[in-house]
Amino acid sequence: MPHRIPAIGRRTLAAAALALAAAPAAAAGDPLPAWRDGAAKRGILDFVARTTRRGAPGYLPPAERIAVFDNDGTLWVEQPLYTQFAFALDRLRDLAGQDPGLAAREPFKAALAGDLAAVLAGGEKGLAEIVAVTHAGMSQEAFAGIVTRWLGTARHPRFDRPYTRLIYQPMLEVMRLLRRAGFEVWIVTGGGQEFVRAFSAATYDVPIRQVVGSVGKTEFRLLPEGRSELFRLPAIVAVDDGPGKPVGIGHAIGRRPALAFGNSDGDIEMLQYTTTGPGRRLGLILHHDDAVREYAYDRGSHVGRLDRGLALAPDAGWTVVSMQRDWRRIFPPG
Amino acid sequence: MPHRIPAIGRRTLAAAALALAAAPAAAAGDPLPAWRDGAAKRGILDFVARTTRRGAPGYLPPAERIAVFDNDGTLWVEQPLYTQFAFALDRLRDLAGQDPGLAAREPFKAALAGDLAAVLAGGEKGLAEIVAVTHAGMSQEAFAGIVTRWLGTARHPRFDRPYTRLIYQPMLEVMRLLRRAGFEVWIVTGGGQEFVRAFSAATYDVPIRQVVGSVGKTEFRLLPEGRSELFRLPAIVAVDDGPGKPVGIGHAIGRRPALAFGNSDGDIEMLQYTTTGPGRRLGLILHHDDAVREYAYDRGSHVGRLDRGLALAPDAGWTVVSMQRDWRRIFPPG
Repeated sequence: MPHRIPAIGRRTLAAAALALAAAPAAAAGDPLPAWRDGAAKRGILDFVARTTRRGAPGYLPPAERIAVFDNDGTLWVEQPLYTQFAFALDRLRDLAGQDPGLAAREPFKAALAGDLAAVLAGGEKGLAEIVAVTHAGMSQEAFAGIVTRWLGTARHPRFDRPYTRLIYQPMLEVMRLLRRAGFEVWIVTGGGQEFVRAFSAATYDVPIRQVVGSVGKTEFRLLPEGRSELFRLPAIVAVDDGPGKPVGIGHAIGRRPALAFGNSDGDIEMLQYTTTGPGRRLGLILHHDDAVREYAYDRGSHVGRLDRGLALAPDAGWTVVSMQRDWRRIFPPG
Repeated sequence: MPHRIPAIGRRTLAAAALALAAAPAAAAGDPLPAWRDGAAKRGILDFVARTTRRGAPGYLPPAERIAVFDNDGTLWVEQPLYTQFAFALDRLRDLAGQDPGLAAREPFKAALAGDLAAVLAGGEKGLAEIVAVTHAGMSQEAFAGIVTRWLGTARHPRFDRPYTRLIYQPMLEVMRLLRRAGFEVWIVTGGGQEFVRAFSAATYDVPIRQVVGSVGKTEFRLLPEGRSELFRLPAIVAVDDGPGKPVGIGHAIGRRPALAFGNSDGDIEMLQYTTTGPGRRLGLILHHDDAVREYAYDRGSHVGRLDRGLALAPDAGWTVVSMQRDWRRIFPPG
């Protein structure tokens, strides 16, 4: 039986409805507005609901709510070059400007000419030399300053935006949803730990102590005038990629994660470590299949190759997220 | 001019005073009741007040409120033997019971006979072999279980208490005070990271991800039946002692601490790194000078030697805390 609403009541209701409509979608009920409805979105929402409902079979006490995310290709664009490699090349150009001898020597000459095939032809040695020259020989604080300044001016060649604006809006939403549900959100990156720490808090709301990455050797140095620093040496002590990811997780977090999100074969062991634990677990792989809005690559790519991961996903129960079909939008506005 | 209080008012006041007196000292105003009044206690209270008062010259934004504590001899008793070494000897006895051949071989034979001088005569090699046999060859989870079970039954030879009850009440109070003031409290120990993680949360209220320690090599292993583990190998990848402490802090925390508390020469570089930063800093050294209630040792001790630290403290501005004079009580009740 319809209820007659007096005119004044109707105006009040209309105002309330308008206020609700104006509220951000997240607050109004959908915490993942950049995701299209589908198995991936429903799987994430379902996982959060089941792990946080006290007494439910998949319930996780707060201390066990650990979620790990790869960075390159999972949280931000990694094509046509890993951003940290673009940084290294720009820094090499700067250094060569101050020291012309550098530009004449290999592998720097090839790198400065953009001939990455020649750099990589020498195996990891060439890359290691470039990392040593561009990433070491300074304090941790000085390095963080160099990265921050570079990120403030560098722009992506295709999108003509700062790299820190080429982050994925759907992933920001997933991280926010997890944090609100009491999860600790960690970044577990094959990239340099200090490189990612330089922007993780401002860009992703992930505090620097929750960034696990590849680690360069450092040395404690006492300086004149009562100062001291951690000095970066040209050597790597931990490669946080492939099987190094669960090892890095054990070292820094000390707990098996409940959720892992990656996008390349370098994330396989992190996904395996996460999803082979007891209880409810969620493993996700972002598949870059959207050449129009971002990039399309998998098995044949040098950067972010995804081959074994796609083969293992069905049996492992990992969700393959299609950028093209599952994401309504890619980047944050502006 | 005295104010005349009516009888009913006087009863109310008396009841209020009784209620205040019955409240725990911490709630009633003194957050450090196990500390005697003196320069050390006042220095800690003053540091917390000045770093947390917005607009004050020493104010620290919450993200920079990092406090680091050594463990052995700073948070719990380290005499007559580091607790982890007592654990290793007990475990060696267990293993020798299952494998008599082990008991016949050096350095295990000397260790089982309690002849530590003979073990140490061979340099670090003997110790490394004992650590390899007692601390490796199992998963991280299995190791944590072994440590937890041992801590549940082992008792200190002099005090006849579980080791986790031989923690220092005054230090529990300092850690609680700092946490309430928005500091993140970390343990930075020369001991094994996983050993200390096995009890840090229950014993000190320090979550396992805030334990930085010496780290053994681990390997990710896929197991049958869809399981996986991090397997402990007999090799050390990071020694978190001396200059290794600031390196470990950089790796795990990524920020220079504002407060450091140690007790031995192995803490010097951590104290230097902390107190040579800009802004307000506090470095403290616990001096074990109380043979009656605990132990008295410094320059001549093999365990927890404190020699250079005492020499450097005056110029560095580090507070030397006297266990005998500054601490009203040593251990928690019970």
